[in-house]
Amino acid sequence: MNPNLTTITRSKTANRSAILLIHCPDRLGLVSIVTEFIFKNNGNILYLDQHVDPQAQVFFMRVEWDLASFSIPDDKIGEYFSVLVADRLGMQWTLHFSDDVPRMALFVSKLPHCLHDILAHVEAGEWRVELPLIVSNHTTLEPVAKRMGIPFHVIPVDKDNKPAQEQQQQALLQEHKIDFIVLARYMQIVSADFISHYPSRIINIHHSFLPAFPGAKPYHSAHERGVKIIGATSHYVTADLDAGPIIEQDVVRVTHKDTVEDLLRKGQELEKIVLSRAIWMHLKRKVLVYGNRTVIFP
Amino acid sequence: MNPNLTTITRSKTANRSAILLIHCPDRLGLVSIVTEFIFKNNGNILYLDQHVDPQAQVFFMRVEWDLASFSIPDDKIGEYFSVLVADRLGMQWTLHFSDDVPRMALFVSKLPHCLHDILAHVEAGEWRVELPLIVSNHTTLEPVAKRMGIPFHVIPVDKDNKPAQEQQQQALLQEHKIDFIVLARYMQIVSADFISHYPSRIINIHHSFLPAFPGAKPYHSAHERGVKIIGATSHYVTADLDAGPIIEQDVVRVTHKDTVEDLLRKGQELEKIVLSRAIWMHLKRKVLVYGNRTVIFP
Amino acid sequence: MNPNLTTITRSKTANRSAILLIHCPDRLGLVSIVTEFIFKNNGNILYLDQHVDPQAQVFFMRVEWDLASFSIPDDKIGEYFSVLVADRLGMQWTLHFSDDVPRMALFVSKLPHCLHDILAHVEAGEWRVELPLIVSNHTTLEPVAKRMGIPFHVIPVDKDNKPAQEQQQQALLQEHKIDFIVLARYMQIVSADFISHYPSRIINIHHSFLPAFPGAKPYHSAHERGVKIIGATSHYVTADLDAGPIIEQDVVRVTHKDTVEDLLRKGQELEKIVLSRAIWMHLKRKVLVYGNRTVIFP
Amino acid sequence: MNPNLTTITRSKTANRSAILLIHCPDRLGLVSIVTEFIFKNNGNILYLDQHVDPQAQVFFMRVEWDLASFSIPDDKIGEYFSVLVADRLGMQWTLHFSDDVPRMALFVSKLPHCLHDILAHVEAGEWRVELPLIVSNHTTLEPVAKRMGIPFHVIPVDKDNKPAQEQQQQALLQEHKIDFIVLARYMQIVSADFISHYPSRIINIHHSFLPAFPGAKPYHSAHERGVKIIGATSHYVTADLDAGPIIEQDVVRVTHKDTVEDLLRKGQELEKIVLSRAIWMHLKRKVLVYGNRTVIFP
Repeated sequence: MNPNLTTITRSKTANRSAILLIHCPDRLGLVSIVTEFIFKNNGNILYLDQHVDPQAQVFFMRVEWDLASFSIPDDKIGEYFSVLVADRLGMQWTLHFSDDVPRMALFVSKLPHCLHDILAHVEAGEWRVELPLIVSNHTTLEPVAKRMGIPFHVIPVDKDNKPAQEQQQQALLQEHKIDFIVLARYMQIVSADFISHYPSRIINIHHSFLPAFPGAKPYHSAHERGVKIIGATSHYVTADLDAGPIIEQDVVRVTHKDTVEDLLRKGQELEKIVLSRAIWMHLKRKVLVYGNRTVIFP
Repeated sequence: MNPNLTTITRSKTANRSAILLIHCPDRLGLVSIVTEFIFKNNGNILYLDQHVDPQAQVFFMRVEWDLASFSIPDDKIGEYFSVLVADRLGMQWTLHFSDDVPRMALFVSKLPHCLHDILAHVEAGEWRVELPLIVSNHTTLEPVAKRMGIPFHVIPVDKDNKPAQEQQQQALLQEHKIDFIVLARYMQIVSADFISHYPSRIINIHHSFLPAFPGAKPYHSAHERGVKIIGATSHYVTADLDAGPIIEQDVVRVTHKDTVEDLLRKGQELEKIVLSRAIWMHLKRKVLVYGNRTVIFP
Repeated sequence: MNPNLTTITRSKTANRSAILLIHCPDRLGLVSIVTEFIFKNNGNILYLDQHVDPQAQVFFMRVEWDLASFSIPDDKIGEYFSVLVADRLGMQWTLHFSDDVPRMALFVSKLPHCLHDILAHVEAGEWRVELPLIVSNHTTLEPVAKRMGIPFHVIPVDKDNKPAQEQQQQALLQEHKIDFIVLARYMQIVSADFISHYPSRIINIHHSFLPAFPGAKPYHSAHERGVKIIGATSHYVTADLDAGPIIEQDVVRVTHKDTVEDLLRKGQELEKIVLSRAIWMHLKRKVLVYGNRTVIFP
Repeated sequence: MNPNLTTITRSKTANRSAILLIHCPDRLGLVSIVTEFIFKNNGNILYLDQHVDPQAQVFFMRVEWDLASFSIPDDKIGEYFSVLVADRLGMQWTLHFSDDVPRMALFVSKLPHCLHDILAHVEAGEWRVELPLIVSNHTTLEPVAKRMGIPFHVIPVDKDNKPAQEQQQQALLQEHKIDFIVLARYMQIVSADFISHYPSRIINIHHSFLPAFPGAKPYHSAHERGVKIIGATSHYVTADLDAGPIIEQDVVRVTHKDTVEDLLRKGQELEKIVLSRAIWMHLKRKVLVYGNRTVIFP
């Protein structure tokens, strides 16, 4: 009898775990090959979900396993996985550890609601994340950052100075070793060059149910059109404005009684929730981008 | 003491009632003037809701009152209301009675789900409506109509014969004294001329959350775009395709696991509900169209 | 022609307005009488909604009118309305002004999410409210209050000292002229005596979809029961635990994958939104309590 | 190189597939062992989802694979899986084939809405199911069944004759080789003995958001309690009334304006949808019952 098959005790305390996000051309046996790699090296799978896009014939997988008894040291897991599994199968993959602490930069403008909600999550310790800096094109929200002790960099942007100011932003991001950026109602269009440095690592919140009402003033457009439901959309930023891969959306009912101001009020409640959910999923490595869509592992 | 101010007993059995839908330029005292007209003539108000569009400065009102003790005979209410109230205030209004039985025509094509749901409501006696005919461009759903004993008219439509066929449809509608038409996934574009005969009286169901994904194959587009929520929209048909006044919308969550077929399945469940709700609101005189929007009295 | 019937311009800037919340036995002509009182004194109705409970035969009304040209001075409106309208009709009513600034006390314990969300609304100036003090049975959230400059009173409560401590709370509330209290996950049962001083003026958030899962640990119970949807409920506090009039509820989907911790995370997101919506409706005088239910004017 | 690792073409036409539903004590390597069994025998995995209940330490899995090239004949798969995998791991499992056609019995009473919705799905060919008989305690819905050509058995039930009538029902169910039963608003309590013959194979729809408002007249109770949202719940029937494992729930908003009749109307719309979704998930083998809860594989 296989000695591994003794009933094991899953610790209820959060052990360290490893997370693999994989995608590759679909083939026979992929799940079996990956799980065997983990099993043979004494890893206990905590989470596994796979998805196949039948049209594109692409295989996607998220697998998480307990590292307590895993026989490969952390800094060798990537190498072993490459050589033994991934390379010959054409896999693209990223490896993460449950105790990684990604470094997030916030870009804000004048509207405070998303900033407040993010800070509340960070302060409550609900997210495993560092927040070394906030960037803004206005001074409006500086007091909020200050009383939390978070450095707040005011970098005004207009049509003429954008390239220079984006360079200054990039320097700050590099200096602080930023892993991903959240545009918390930043209200500025970020250049394609800027975006290219953070592929699938800039999260935006758009204040409409995309693809309805892209661009500016979506609540005014929604009111004008007389819709009965409004929404908010969080997506990764790409060079195509408001057209990047969608991470999360949610909606709320409205009526003819709702003025544009009411839509704003109801919408901002949605925006903060949808953005915070998207950040949480990003931090938990539950999002896999391919083409212009996302696989969200539940 | 005013003798009218004795406490009255609202009958729990549905008495006959009158319903006025009004809109006009906003002025001081409109509610007071209308309710006094009803009160002075011994009508007991069962429902009153008013709305003012502050931008357009238009006043909207739905008022329903018990006719049991009303002192003006039914066939004179309109005349009296015109002369005493509406004319000098520039009101546009329609008068309805709770025991009116509007006559509805259904236009269908091959998909059965909306037809089935409508027939279930009609057969269960949940709606006060007559359904004297069903029109289709295909024979597919004829057996469904037949076993319910509803005349089913097959009028195939293509690019070349549309004007002639629409004339035939119009003749049928007139012959059967049709009050309003429901396009229950009819899948054909109706001509502007046809629409002009039934302003705000043709109800369509579009299989997307408008204004996202107008036109053909919205579920394919939604899948391609990677949205996390899909919807359905019921609206009055105007000459602008999929751009008429929205009556009702609803949505459902989807994930990357959902194929186009799954979106179709989930979406059709929405379509039938959203369309049936829209028909119910239309029958209950809860919808007031102005410009390209609707006021929906709850 | 009535000179009042000239088309008027509703100012888009928020003029001062008066709000009447009324309920009384249902009779003929109530809407007419109330609106005539406003109209005759040159008030322009901005909002009117009425409701009749056909079983209880009770009439409810919320009416709001512009004071710009109103001929009765503010401090006489109540008296005139009583004498001319309310007394002979047995009306119970409250009168409010749009520029009233109610004074709110927050009661918190250790959980920060509702407190953060409320403070964000207050700081952003989205609510017309004063927040002169926060009361807690723990020191945990004192730093949050401090950095906002809001007095934070720690009043530990246990079984033995509750009467004395509640007296201390009452003294504070009176000293600060508190109009209403929000229990923002306060986690203590408030005595019937305490409640009797603030009828329909203590707002609680319960972390379940009441009446399912009243009492302690509702997320554990929801997980144990295997429900597919969880909820949160904001209600006025009465002597019956978790049984007071419901102001607002909302829900979110969960699955078998969700641990109790996941339910807590998803639920807290709901709690803060549902509670903040309830406070907003209370502040806007949109809530009328009767018996154990509420009329919420949209 | 492993010859299996050539890129394969997933047929877009629905090939026959096998579905395994498994649960067992959690151990290391379970996913690996199961997927290797499939992979080694040339099965291509189309769907895999696993779940571990960390408290109960139970492992759950749903795996579906294409049978086109599978090397074990259909009628031997169960035996091989038992001997090679399941027995030594203490697995409980069921094996299904995608072209199975389960046989469903409907129990109805007087209310038609769920029956209509089920028949519409069956007639449209959306479900892979046989419907050989409908049982009712009333004749009310006989015409609906008749015009569809479905045998309708009237078996009136009262307190005194229930045991005898249930025996007659059982005889019919056995005669028609019924796999599962749907109580489509049957309105009768089924005996524990009857239930014991169909464990996890009787699907009920309860007209409330359980565990709120179990038992009779939930819409009246919801109205009385003044809730702002109502729901419907589909669950497997157990001997504990309205307490069996929940398959699906959904909700809809209501207001103080909604009478009990309005709650009924809105609720029946929910009931039919929630029940039809539950039947669909049951047919697709997406439901695994354990204890009093369900795992729903998405």
